[in-house]
Amino acid sequence: MHEFDVIKKYFTWDNSPSDVIKSVGDDAAILEIKPDEQLVTSIDTFISGVHFPENTPVDAIGHKALAVNLSDLAAMGATPRWFTLALTLPEIDQNWLTEFSQGLQGLARQYNCFLVGGDTTRGALSITIQVMGVIEKGKALMRSGANVGDALYVTGTLGDAAIGLKTILDNLTLTDSSHTKFCQDRLNKPTPRMTESKIIRDYATACIDLSDGFFQDLGHILKASSCGAEINLAQIPLSKTLSALPIKNAMNAALSGGDDYELLFTIPKSKQQDFEKSIKNRGGGYTCIGRITDQSGCIKNELGEPISAFSDSGYNHFMGSANQKM
Amino acid sequence: MHEFDVIKKYFTWDNSPSDVIKSVGDDAAILEIKPDEQLVTSIDTFISGVHFPENTPVDAIGHKALAVNLSDLAAMGATPRWFTLALTLPEIDQNWLTEFSQGLQGLARQYNCFLVGGDTTRGALSITIQVMGVIEKGKALMRSGANVGDALYVTGTLGDAAIGLKTILDNLTLTDSSHTKFCQDRLNKPTPRMTESKIIRDYATACIDLSDGFFQDLGHILKASSCGAEINLAQIPLSKTLSALPIKNAMNAALSGGDDYELLFTIPKSKQQDFEKSIKNRGGGYTCIGRITDQSGCIKNELGEPISAFSDSGYNHFMGSANQKM
Repeated sequence: MHEFDVIKKYFTWDNSPSDVIKSVGDDAAILEIKPDEQLVTSIDTFISGVHFPENTPVDAIGHKALAVNLSDLAAMGATPRWFTLALTLPEIDQNWLTEFSQGLQGLARQYNCFLVGGDTTRGALSITIQVMGVIEKGKALMRSGANVGDALYVTGTLGDAAIGLKTILDNLTLTDSSHTKFCQDRLNKPTPRMTESKIIRDYATACIDLSDGFFQDLGHILKASSCGAEINLAQIPLSKTLSALPIKNAMNAALSGGDDYELLFTIPKSKQQDFEKSIKNRGGGYTCIGRITDQSGCIKNELGEPISAFSDSGYNHFMGSANQKM
Repeated sequence: MHEFDVIKKYFTWDNSPSDVIKSVGDDAAILEIKPDEQLVTSIDTFISGVHFPENTPVDAIGHKALAVNLSDLAAMGATPRWFTLALTLPEIDQNWLTEFSQGLQGLARQYNCFLVGGDTTRGALSITIQVMGVIEKGKALMRSGANVGDALYVTGTLGDAAIGLKTILDNLTLTDSSHTKFCQDRLNKPTPRMTESKIIRDYATACIDLSDGFFQDLGHILKASSCGAEINLAQIPLSKTLSALPIKNAMNAALSGGDDYELLFTIPKSKQQDFEKSIKNRGGGYTCIGRITDQSGCIKNELGEPISAFSDSGYNHFMGSANQKM
């Protein structure tokens, strides 16, 4: 199978949206942005054996490569529009391409994110996706907006993916196979928090997605916003699966494990009530876990005891040491 | 050296332009496009030993990785604005990073193309760049606009890079070391034809950049525009270096060799005089090499003899078989 045919068969989608003037098939894609919108864009590389275990289901590779990029848009409050794909493959394996494109397209269609171009190369398996979204001018959520007194929230539950990774790499055995499946699904097929993001962006002062682990990513907000945080550890949201584990293991996964792709964000006190009502109405999961303090870079627990000095190095989980966002 | 420091030291640029609302340092970049403009974007992966010989000077790797992307924008008539960089490195080698970023930044600054984000990963050396540019709405040049009777033009000279590659991979020896240097420079440090593009876009009906070789890329225009071409082989522009080679070798390099990064474009007869006057005034190099015919997919010489049936497979030069644009 010639590589031209690969592109046609697996990566040329029908029914392009009206803001795609030209997609796959020319020297570049041509895209339209409304006058009141800004472009929001992020790029991530995904390497076999580095960012995902080599035995990861192929459709999950396609899903996750896009999901981690969509999660970056969710962290900004942006709406996904388009993406490009740079795919390096050791060989043309049609089964692999079918499953990969199914995982990728399934998620892309769910969020109306349209493939507009790309590049295929022979080499060790590596997937680079650049996602592009839009946001109303001036409405993007950055890491730098948190203020002293703001409440600190997370979506979903933390640490499930880290435990999922342990079941794969360290042969950790959970009491029930449904728990194992839950954690591995959380690792392999993360849900970008788009629904929550649309509500959060109307209330939050700062936001980040949890990719490198709670402590490390909280540190990014604290550094960018020049502030500290007090965390109510008892409020850290744990799934039923993690609640059944020894508390030390569960909390270590929740606070330092990577790959959660939940959103961590700050809401001014005056807006908390409205925010909670709004997100509850839309079925979004959220937990208030603490507040922003004036002690720059310092993370304390609810008793005022330092629980982790801010550090750039963070926890070196499977991915943490191998990948760094610019 | 921690990877955070790599990003700060080598890839965070000062003085961001006013259309960059947020660049490196958040979950995504935020960029502004004027209401009368469209976004034009292209992505390319660049792998050591596949897209460039392993002994390529490191600054040239940085230069070329961006140049091939800028060339895609030139082919569309777009003006470069921003790019993202996904860099996979086997190790943190500060000398390598210094030279690479010098090559990259030198070209980026020349064309006011600003680095707005990226991702660093450990692994086999691989560079993926997504370039973003803008163009006035509806003014982009595509492959599909050529009409019967249009004159066919190229910028610069053809085949120099292919001969440069032969001097490196096949130990081809040229009579003079200055010829060798010229051809290797053409291979390693191509000039994206931005200056010419700005003039061409006001007159041309179709345009493509020559990355995979003249025949193959001409084929793309003919296929997209459902037409044929008559080529005056005596008019194919050759450098002094190639003119000194046996004609068969020179023409093979010029017609089938890759990596030229010249523009191939079509101009309606009625606009030829104005176009030539305009490009001459701006110092751009150009040659009229033939015309568009109604014999779809057929390439003939000036005597009407078929010189190459259109074929997707083209010439499998160093890069051609390893890389394919979507």
